[in-house]
Amino acid sequence: MKIGLIGLGKMGYNLVLNMTNKGHEVVAHDVSEEAMNKIASEGVETAASFEEMISKLPTPKIVWLMVPAGDITEDVMNRVSSLLSEQDIIIDGGNANYKDTLRRGNDLKEKGIYLIDSGTSGGMDGARDGVCTMIGGDKEAFDQVEKLFQDISVENGYLYTGKSGSGHFLKMVHNGIEYGMMQAIAEGYEILEKSDFDYDYEEVSRVWNNGSVIRSWLIELMQNAFSKDAKLDSLRGVMNSSGEGKWTVETALDLQAVAPVITLSQIMRYRSQENDTFSGKVVAALRNEFGGHAVVKK
Amino acid sequence: MKIGLIGLGKMGYNLVLNMTNKGHEVVAHDVSEEAMNKIASEGVETAASFEEMISKLPTPKIVWLMVPAGDITEDVMNRVSSLLSEQDIIIDGGNANYKDTLRRGNDLKEKGIYLIDSGTSGGMDGARDGVCTMIGGDKEAFDQVEKLFQDISVENGYLYTGKSGSGHFLKMVHNGIEYGMMQAIAEGYEILEKSDFDYDYEEVSRVWNNGSVIRSWLIELMQNAFSKDAKLDSLRGVMNSSGEGKWTVETALDLQAVAPVITLSQIMRYRSQENDTFSGKVVAALRNEFGGHAVVKK
Repeated sequence: MKIGLIGLGKMGYNLVLNMTNKGHEVVAHDVSEEAMNKIASEGVETAASFEEMISKLPTPKIVWLMVPAGDITEDVMNRVSSLLSEQDIIIDGGNANYKDTLRRGNDLKEKGIYLIDSGTSGGMDGARDGVCTMIGGDKEAFDQVEKLFQDISVENGYLYTGKSGSGHFLKMVHNGIEYGMMQAIAEGYEILEKSDFDYDYEEVSRVWNNGSVIRSWLIELMQNAFSKDAKLDSLRGVMNSSGEGKWTVETALDLQAVAPVITLSQIMRYRSQENDTFSGKVVAALRNEFGGHAVVKK
Repeated sequence: MKIGLIGLGKMGYNLVLNMTNKGHEVVAHDVSEEAMNKIASEGVETAASFEEMISKLPTPKIVWLMVPAGDITEDVMNRVSSLLSEQDIIIDGGNANYKDTLRRGNDLKEKGIYLIDSGTSGGMDGARDGVCTMIGGDKEAFDQVEKLFQDISVENGYLYTGKSGSGHFLKMVHNGIEYGMMQAIAEGYEILEKSDFDYDYEEVSRVWNNGSVIRSWLIELMQNAFSKDAKLDSLRGVMNSSGEGKWTVETALDLQAVAPVITLSQIMRYRSQENDTFSGKVVAALRNEFGGHAVVKK
């Protein structure tokens, strides 16, 4: 299969190598000339513009977008779709909000262009060697590209999830679960660290990964992390997030689905980004007002 | 090694088979004659009383307790230790509260008896085929029984965690993490179920287990569960708990370790056990009082 791929970031770059490794041809494009040169040095064909990329693809044209969610995806999809014709296929492999995907899918359908939404999990190594894909969109379009998904995914690692948006929705929920699992794991290590016992966290992670109920890829990653930095002394505990957790919480609210732990996991990330809080000052002030309790002054 | 094992419940029974399978000799005892007959039919030696069991062990005597936490562990340990001598070893493989373990370890030390606390994870299949063990207690006692732990655990699945109580503490925290991970996973499926999409949860679990960030034994178990009951229609969503989650929350409070997600996971279990709540009535009453909002009457 010959695919145009736009976006040579951490995931896109490795996906291109994964695809070509499996015998697919890729015409790659990125706004960064450096990224283009780097992938070209791997023997991958590049295109300096969307127009050039699309001219190099056979019909029906298949274009994989791997760009940041939001305005960039919107802009790239608009520009690419204006160059495509009926029966062509756009695959959005990024973390788009499924509501945007639903809208975009409808818009493209009017032009006869298929939009496939692929939630793509597995991190950079996964992108390179075998990813996990959750794929929504019209079945007739999926059938045309199923071989591609089969090839780039680990064994049993791709699933056609149904109508447009269902792939990105499932990936969003996957990330919500991931937030909750990560927070639960983190709290466990926090309790160990505050205890009177003296644990070797690399060893703890190792034993938890062998035969325990919580064995998981995330604990494997912790074994890795602790092997490099036994107490994570080189880090600050600032937990950033990139949108999917927040969307999961918003979606849970919309659906009236009770998801307090995923919600709290998102909120704990925000808390970690603040050195001090206004709410903390409010509680301190109230304790002082009603009980004369000491406050910590700046 | 020849070991006395008391408690032929789900875990103990399978542990005995695991031990004998690895070439250890076991003298088993249980209050249930049925359990004793069953294990005897597997060719395992049994003893009708603690006294008989201990008389059948070489010196130093090694007795593994696999009985419910709390009063039963307390009672069995008192009775067994009264029959033991200096240098003998009691291994508590159950889910004892680590504070009880600390106290019991000190009491036994005064008599020269060693107490080893082993947190034992992996479920029934693990107990049978290879378990994960987190082992606290005096190092000189551990050294004498390390081979036993090595044999009954999966490869890389045992860890000497240090002083008395550290094994049970680590197992407790493991279970706290487990509660949080389970709740996060559950909330994810809840959101899927409330959505407009039509997912096959067995297939979702399958794809999540292959290459995704949340791949884990727990999601494997969900694949299993959904394969037998696609929407879990045969169950009610009552989430019981057996103590370790609560102890983790209590310990987090004692240590002032911030563990909101593990705490909330425990609380959601309690919520699931109530068909209706008094707090719900209070909120309904307040909304009615200040805003005349409709209430649901019995």
